[in-house]
Amino acid sequence: MTATADEDRYREKMAHRKAIQDEEVASKTEERGLFAVHTGTGKGKSTAAFGLALRMLGRGKRIVVVQFIKGAWDTGERHALERFGDMVEWHALGEGFTWETQDRTRDIASCERAWAVAELALKREDVALVILDELNIALRYDYIAPERVLASIAARPKMQHVWVTGRNAKQAVIEAADLVTEMTLVKHHFKAGVKAQEGVEF
Amino acid sequence: MTATADEDRYREKMAHRKAIQDEEVASKTEERGLFAVHTGTGKGKSTAAFGLALRMLGRGKRIVVVQFIKGAWDTGERHALERFGDMVEWHALGEGFTWETQDRTRDIASCERAWAVAELALKREDVALVILDELNIALRYDYIAPERVLASIAARPKMQHVWVTGRNAKQAVIEAADLVTEMTLVKHHFKAGVKAQEGVEF
Repeated sequence: MTATADEDRYREKMAHRKAIQDEEVASKTEERGLFAVHTGTGKGKSTAAFGLALRMLGRGKRIVVVQFIKGAWDTGERHALERFGDMVEWHALGEGFTWETQDRTRDIASCERAWAVAELALKREDVALVILDELNIALRYDYIAPERVLASIAARPKMQHVWVTGRNAKQAVIEAADLVTEMTLVKHHFKAGVKAQEGVEF
Repeated sequence: MTATADEDRYREKMAHRKAIQDEEVASKTEERGLFAVHTGTGKGKSTAAFGLALRMLGRGKRIVVVQFIKGAWDTGERHALERFGDMVEWHALGEGFTWETQDRTRDIASCERAWAVAELALKREDVALVILDELNIALRYDYIAPERVLASIAARPKMQHVWVTGRNAKQAVIEAADLVTEMTLVKHHFKAGVKAQEGVEF
């Protein structure tokens, strides 16, 4: 086959893909807030949610983050998001991972405090995105009932997006969501003896 | 079993987990730049890389982003990252997805331009993170040879992190990387007729 025939075939193949793509895009007409879940054991669940927060802020939209597990929060994200002033509300209301606290009553109490803040955010028309970080973990340990969570998410303002992160998402949560991504760990540098590093892990 | 016995068991289980966790963390001693890959057909590959950029910026570290496919770039991320001034260098050097351009020669030329910029970044000691966005797609279509890419990544400054995104990561890339996360699509709102929305998809 000549180089020109190659080029022609390439053009034809790509034209076909473009036609499919265009048709697919045209068939989507609804605009509404999305309920998304990032789950799985791989890295990037919370990080992708914060990347989305960045995109929203770039569009002038207001965001609220509620962290259910992480507390005493001094991470790179916080420093960076301080630049956006009152467009960002960040609530780190956890008290560490459960194996740090070793006290179920306390874990439940801190989850209730975080949920109270989340519920307020889920009622606000001026908030474009609510990130409920590591909520799946709180649900998994039965710190809070999924029915309560799903009822508040369902009743939120029509255009509000809500992003829930954390491994082991419950089936009921997956069923209720519009978009679910599972982050799968294929390979991890900890195995090679590399430690958690500033800017990467925190 | 009494409530107290329940509490005790919980405490014991969590103490056990904490011990394992602590031991694991203590065994990691090396500090060096990581080479990570986000692949898979799910959402969040680029978004998680931008979330990491945010974390790096919060730690006062300099980043360079080279986009191999996306061009004519006016997304939420750009607007948001403008706030960080010269700590961020963003090069959107693609000319759209290949089914948009339908011209292989042009696709290869634009990939070469992007790679030239990437190579410069991969030599800079002052750059903490280089994001090579959608490079996997350029590799997949043979716009650039993986050997060239992997040699430059291997020769970069010791503390520099490099993040490569895009579906269909080549096996050679996966083997060379320290950290590989596959984003798997479990459920997508496009199926429900919801269109791409500002702040979410762009």
